[in-house]
Amino acid sequence: MAQKPSIPKGTRDFSPIEMAKRNYIFNTIKDVFLLYGFQQIETPAVENLCTLMGKYGEEGDKLLFKILNSGDFLKSAPDDMLNQRDCQHLTPKICEKGLRYDLTVPFARYVVQHRNELQFPFKRYQIQPVWRADRPQKGRYREFYQCDADVVGSDSLVNEVELISLIDEVFSRFGINITIKVNNRKVLSGIAEMIGAPDKIIDITVAIDKIDKIGIENVNAELIEKGISEEAVEMLQPLLNLTGTNEEKFKTLEAMLGNSPTGKKGIEELRFVFNNVANLSPRATVELDVSLARGLNYYTGTILEVKANDVAMGSITGGGRYDNLTGVFGMDGVSGVGISFGADRIFDVLNTLNLYPADTCATTKVMFTNFGDAESKAALNIVMKLRKAGIPAELYPESSKMKKQMGYADAKQIPYVAMVGESEIANGTVTLKNMATGEQSELSIEQLIDALK
Amino acid sequence: MAQKPSIPKGTRDFSPIEMAKRNYIFNTIKDVFLLYGFQQIETPAVENLCTLMGKYGEEGDKLLFKILNSGDFLKSAPDDMLNQRDCQHLTPKICEKGLRYDLTVPFARYVVQHRNELQFPFKRYQIQPVWRADRPQKGRYREFYQCDADVVGSDSLVNEVELISLIDEVFSRFGINITIKVNNRKVLSGIAEMIGAPDKIIDITVAIDKIDKIGIENVNAELIEKGISEEAVEMLQPLLNLTGTNEEKFKTLEAMLGNSPTGKKGIEELRFVFNNVANLSPRATVELDVSLARGLNYYTGTILEVKANDVAMGSITGGGRYDNLTGVFGMDGVSGVGISFGADRIFDVLNTLNLYPADTCATTKVMFTNFGDAESKAALNIVMKLRKAGIPAELYPESSKMKKQMGYADAKQIPYVAMVGESEIANGTVTLKNMATGEQSELSIEQLIDALK
Repeated sequence: MAQKPSIPKGTRDFSPIEMAKRNYIFNTIKDVFLLYGFQQIETPAVENLCTLMGKYGEEGDKLLFKILNSGDFLKSAPDDMLNQRDCQHLTPKICEKGLRYDLTVPFARYVVQHRNELQFPFKRYQIQPVWRADRPQKGRYREFYQCDADVVGSDSLVNEVELISLIDEVFSRFGINITIKVNNRKVLSGIAEMIGAPDKIIDITVAIDKIDKIGIENVNAELIEKGISEEAVEMLQPLLNLTGTNEEKFKTLEAMLGNSPTGKKGIEELRFVFNNVANLSPRATVELDVSLARGLNYYTGTILEVKANDVAMGSITGGGRYDNLTGVFGMDGVSGVGISFGADRIFDVLNTLNLYPADTCATTKVMFTNFGDAESKAALNIVMKLRKAGIPAELYPESSKMKKQMGYADAKQIPYVAMVGESEIANGTVTLKNMATGEQSELSIEQLIDALK
Repeated sequence: MAQKPSIPKGTRDFSPIEMAKRNYIFNTIKDVFLLYGFQQIETPAVENLCTLMGKYGEEGDKLLFKILNSGDFLKSAPDDMLNQRDCQHLTPKICEKGLRYDLTVPFARYVVQHRNELQFPFKRYQIQPVWRADRPQKGRYREFYQCDADVVGSDSLVNEVELISLIDEVFSRFGINITIKVNNRKVLSGIAEMIGAPDKIIDITVAIDKIDKIGIENVNAELIEKGISEEAVEMLQPLLNLTGTNEEKFKTLEAMLGNSPTGKKGIEELRFVFNNVANLSPRATVELDVSLARGLNYYTGTILEVKANDVAMGSITGGGRYDNLTGVFGMDGVSGVGISFGADRIFDVLNTLNLYPADTCATTKVMFTNFGDAESKAALNIVMKLRKAGIPAELYPESSKMKKQMGYADAKQIPYVAMVGESEIANGTVTLKNMATGEQSELSIEQLIDALK
């Protein structure tokens, strides 16, 4: 009869304490979004499958959660597909809708659908869950929140500068020391152009990234093994030795890519971004990193990634510029640049470094004990006065044993317990107990409000 | 090639202005929840179908959105079901998961699954979307938010008093005048007991509700038509004439139900709630309404419903007490009482009565115009100073024509525009324009911050 309840693999319940921490994260980010002029939108969790299919590659299509049509869902299913149990071709016949896989495609759909109501440049943020039928593993969920900000309809690099500054402000509020790594797709294209191997750009960036671990000799050997010519590897040497300040790196790149118009354009863009960001004196380290190659299948300009300096963990925020966000929905010429905060990883970093502010999980400030109907009636009147003064307060609902009532206050980490018994009612007072020190004192209502404010 | 993008019927996009209004609603409610000691939880959108099926009646099972299993979803589908296109029996073979239909069943599942981590009484709130494959119509959506607060693990009527007080506080913050109608399932059971027709309780409450519209004669005729005996209709007359103050209604009920132990218990519970609520001097009208019969298939004690006094609209909040929330998941003896705010209807009421605070949709306070690279670099430094002072500010990202830049500020309803040109850079000043009055003045940075604070 009774089921042992559970939730699907890769999904999570969030307890009050986890919610308090998540709210702290999202509220901090929202406050900064607002300060930078971003506006919130929400789109439905359920989109038409035709909006989602084909946008994330073949693998992505498989990872979409599809929703079975209601009622007689087999009415459009051809006999032969059923007989052959042809799941792949049956799916579109029995499912019209799916759960969103990310916030970017629904946003592109939103921009096209509402183009006439929007003022461009449009600066939007969106914090909502997404769903992926990925194999669940540590740190990878089937349902998780994304937290994105994008500016669309503006080519200006000022947007990149603003987004980097925004990232700096968010992590500075969190107290997390970060390095913002910045690259530009055009620099990578310039390198590929220069050595005549545009298809090898991933191999090259992977190799550059390994130098610290395996040394330059091994990296060169690996490049040759990947099919890059000895001549090209020779040309890549300055890139593999790219160290020093951002300015030194820029100099090396300029010398290397002087003959590549695309490469030069990439360096020029990077220089604009670095100059203007430096002008704002960010607290974060902002670092030119030519090995940064995330999202190469959609980013067309700036690429950026954030790492926490004091915790070994992957990227905690990423983003970049894309040339044609909305083309797939029939609206060309809308360029954009966006970032995405990794809420789950930020949650873990804040836990690891114990950086949550002391009052993050604060709930009720004072619990009134319950001595019975008459006393609780009096207590409730005082509880209401505290709430009017903005103090979260509650009355224990039952006149249970004191031990049980105190246990509740303890478990909920309520710092004060107030008692209103016969003598307090007669005196118009409250006895207040500090749960940490055990200290107790009899106060007037005004004194009580002052003590708890 | 390009698709004309759209979203599924019954779902919605929320624009920045709609989001601002919705955030105002949810934040107001959240603030009050916190003040009353409720803690937030979240559960996954996707639940195992076995958690959801059978909890909402046969009709409800049909209205669940089911998620197609990934990969070879037909592997457990028997041949005969496929051949007979037996959709009903195939569904559980090809779908293991579904979207939550409400917040109550997932909450019951949560309580049972996490019983050892929870401190009872557990006061939780939850604000999340739910999905129903209902036929969409005006005001009815397939994806919509619910906003619930419940206390579980306590039989005390103090919880009812607190929830009514909480409702009063929420709507008083909204500026919506309301009537909170309260009834008790046990009173209805008592009436049914008294006239010997327990199955007719819905017919009776529907009839009582119609008296103002069709008059007592017609109501009596309707009751006879529904198969209630003339004798019973005679006994019901005091109930049909139930008018006057709550106290007068109580007196009539007590006289009528004096011989029904269940009815007497219901009256006693109602009296406790009304006395204790009156003691808190609520701003709302709190009214005893024996025609209130919502949720009779699960509420076992208090039933309540909120109507806006100044707008013709259905219930904008409702709730009640249920005896055995978690029994279906194998954990008996957990009683609870809860309320649910109707966010969509509250949204409509606030719109109709124009009650949103003036700054609900406020975004950026000041936009800096962009006169080119050098000027925008200087402007960005000032923008950062404003943000540090907590003033939402942005720089228009491109050095477009002034008309276009001003059009952006206008469309986004930004109240001030700031200009930093050559002369302002030389003077260390900013020219500030009030977009409403057209007034312009040259200010130092300190003066600017003061003017915008």
